[in-house]
Amino acid sequence: MRILIKDAVKNLDKEVTLLGWIHRIRDLGKISFILLRDRSGIIQLVTDKITDINTESVVKATGTLRSNEKAPGGVELDLKGIEVLAKAHGDLPIAVNQDPSKLSLEAVLDHRILSLRNPKIRSIFTLQSNILKHFATHLRSEDFTEIKTSKLIGTGTEGGTGLFPVQYFDRKVYLAQSPQFYKQAMVASGMERVFEIGDAYRAEKHDTPRHLNEYVSLDVEMAFIESEQDLMDLEQRILKSIFEGLKKDSGEIVKEWNSAIPSGEEVDKIPRITHDEAKEIVSSVSGKRVFEINPEGERILCEWAEKEHGCNAVFVYAFPRRKRPFYTFPIENHKTMSFDLLFRGLEITTGGRRINEYDMLIQSIERFHLKPEGLADYLEIFKYGCPPHGGFAIGLERLTQKILGLPNVKEASLFPRDRKRVRP
Amino acid sequence: MRILIKDAVKNLDKEVTLLGWIHRIRDLGKISFILLRDRSGIIQLVTDKITDINTESVVKATGTLRSNEKAPGGVELDLKGIEVLAKAHGDLPIAVNQDPSKLSLEAVLDHRILSLRNPKIRSIFTLQSNILKHFATHLRSEDFTEIKTSKLIGTGTEGGTGLFPVQYFDRKVYLAQSPQFYKQAMVASGMERVFEIGDAYRAEKHDTPRHLNEYVSLDVEMAFIESEQDLMDLEQRILKSIFEGLKKDSGEIVKEWNSAIPSGEEVDKIPRITHDEAKEIVSSVSGKRVFEINPEGERILCEWAEKEHGCNAVFVYAFPRRKRPFYTFPIENHKTMSFDLLFRGLEITTGGRRINEYDMLIQSIERFHLKPEGLADYLEIFKYGCPPHGGFAIGLERLTQKILGLPNVKEASLFPRDRKRVRP
Repeated sequence: MRILIKDAVKNLDKEVTLLGWIHRIRDLGKISFILLRDRSGIIQLVTDKITDINTESVVKATGTLRSNEKAPGGVELDLKGIEVLAKAHGDLPIAVNQDPSKLSLEAVLDHRILSLRNPKIRSIFTLQSNILKHFATHLRSEDFTEIKTSKLIGTGTEGGTGLFPVQYFDRKVYLAQSPQFYKQAMVASGMERVFEIGDAYRAEKHDTPRHLNEYVSLDVEMAFIESEQDLMDLEQRILKSIFEGLKKDSGEIVKEWNSAIPSGEEVDKIPRITHDEAKEIVSSVSGKRVFEINPEGERILCEWAEKEHGCNAVFVYAFPRRKRPFYTFPIENHKTMSFDLLFRGLEITTGGRRINEYDMLIQSIERFHLKPEGLADYLEIFKYGCPPHGGFAIGLERLTQKILGLPNVKEASLFPRDRKRVRP
Repeated sequence: MRILIKDAVKNLDKEVTLLGWIHRIRDLGKISFILLRDRSGIIQLVTDKITDINTESVVKATGTLRSNEKAPGGVELDLKGIEVLAKAHGDLPIAVNQDPSKLSLEAVLDHRILSLRNPKIRSIFTLQSNILKHFATHLRSEDFTEIKTSKLIGTGTEGGTGLFPVQYFDRKVYLAQSPQFYKQAMVASGMERVFEIGDAYRAEKHDTPRHLNEYVSLDVEMAFIESEQDLMDLEQRILKSIFEGLKKDSGEIVKEWNSAIPSGEEVDKIPRITHDEAKEIVSSVSGKRVFEINPEGERILCEWAEKEHGCNAVFVYAFPRRKRPFYTFPIENHKTMSFDLLFRGLEITTGGRRINEYDMLIQSIERFHLKPEGLADYLEIFKYGCPPHGGFAIGLERLTQKILGLPNVKEASLFPRDRKRVRP
């Protein structure tokens, strides 16, 4: 019966079977120390027999577990037999068992199949899996329904630019930039509270450490809100649940990446400033007058929040109307009930209250010089009674990146897609 | 403070606020009965004032809750004030408050935004959300990691046919038919056990009650298995968890659809028959010699299992090699370690052990007349030690359909895509 390496310490002096990959071999002639890796950890195997096993081969090892203070984890396997289940062929293009900081981002991504075998790199995605769990669990606890909507759309609610065309039988459709249309439809259908974990596509030519052309969007939409303030409250509750959950199940991973998970108190302290106030702060800190918040501005604002409020995050709200999509609920004609959340120097959320009245929406469409005909299906949502509502989306990869302090968002995507990369 | 309609009975004789949609109005001249609908249920409002509210408008209603045996749910709201939050415009193209069986499938899907307001239609997706929860919860309990992989691929592991092309900047890529390549890569990376809830795309020209061109695939992949028997064991454990979970949180929905959730004992009884045995049974029942299991054969096999084993489901395994993809693990040259699960007359799962040895895979690629060059990234997984493994996928919409007894799988997709339909 196989046991996991993490359970070795509970099985001292017993004969057990371990399954896993050969992580490293140290052959001292008379004695060999072999590190074996499985999904739960790494253990030392000790043998005085000569083995012709190479690193990354998959093996079944049997033997007796012994306590040994010098061994990693304080326990080692006195090897009795080892069977190769799958032999690793040839030389590895990158070493799996080295410190991943020695690898370039290009090498990590080009050899993704192999680089993911490095436990530290793989741990990024263990943590990401836990984020998905805590996100969904929190929303279900607030009576949200999980939805799955189509990613193949006739036209975009956000305009036609930035969309990837798909040849769909004899016609052209597009990959959805967001589930905006559908999550609003579901709120209006009477579900009131929905969330979706789904892919989003942006055909933008950016190639920066903060952009992906395909990413996972954690989308939330909620009926019967008053303003974007309710949405910021909700996002704070979600983030507290995620962070508290991660402290329990991913604390070791965050520590290994030399990062820290914000506390619930820190989340409570996230300041809320208007877009005008944000520009003032950035102008004052940078010493030059700014008219919008660029990536440098996002960093400045988070540093300001850290210094002034003890929390490396800030909500910016009341964005000007010209900076938000046509469906954003206006205040006093030139502002909107919208917000961004900046976390550790990066925008990880955009959201806001949406226009829910048909006539107001028609006016907004005209103001933005869009054509109501192209939005016929979208308008249907509002014709027949749509409650006041709003929502937001958190970028999964950006959140993962910032929790672990990774320099590039691509490190937080298993198989990232950028302008040049479509493989592996 | 708003209360949900389901909590009305706990607030008798109190003044409360309700929010929701006008479901139906019965104006008796001196007195009006108005049905109000929110995400949790329907309640009767009683008023002697004339109201000019129309159905589907969104309102805020205040008043005192009174016990009334004749009212639906035994409680009604003595209306004090009603405020329209969003007026429904004009005539509804389909009635929301009627029995949905009176609507054609075309009408339901063409007017999806409105048909989803019907509580019975919407309930399909409440149940679907619960399936997602139970699926993920079960797999996490067995130490599986949730992954999110790219849907934009350079080439298909399953060959180039049946793929939708995407214009990706200056090159062509394809929408993934399944996360096959990636989930195997993640198993080999050392995660050992992964699952993915993701979109899958099939550019097949079918237009049948069992096909969708875009669907949600519940994918599972697991290392260190012996054969497909381990995978069938796992699927039975997953289905038991889903069904037991649904009994608790979706029992009412299943009842309203006149269906029933299989018991844990029924799942335990699912018989396992070889593809050869399956052909024998279908030939014998239908009275004509069959050489493959078509949809009619799937129905016959499930009826057979119901009669012989008391369970409307059957595993068919040991499929011939020519019927399975090149990566399926062979037995005795002409058979494979693969299986299907048929449930209530429909295939809802395909799975199997995969070839994990590099040399065996190269041989299989040649046997299937494929080119190793086109599979270079895929082959990389097996070059450096890949454990014995396998997996399967459950179609979310098909599972939903069969649990509720829906005639067409499109009813179980919020915004289905077929050859002709790409909207709403």
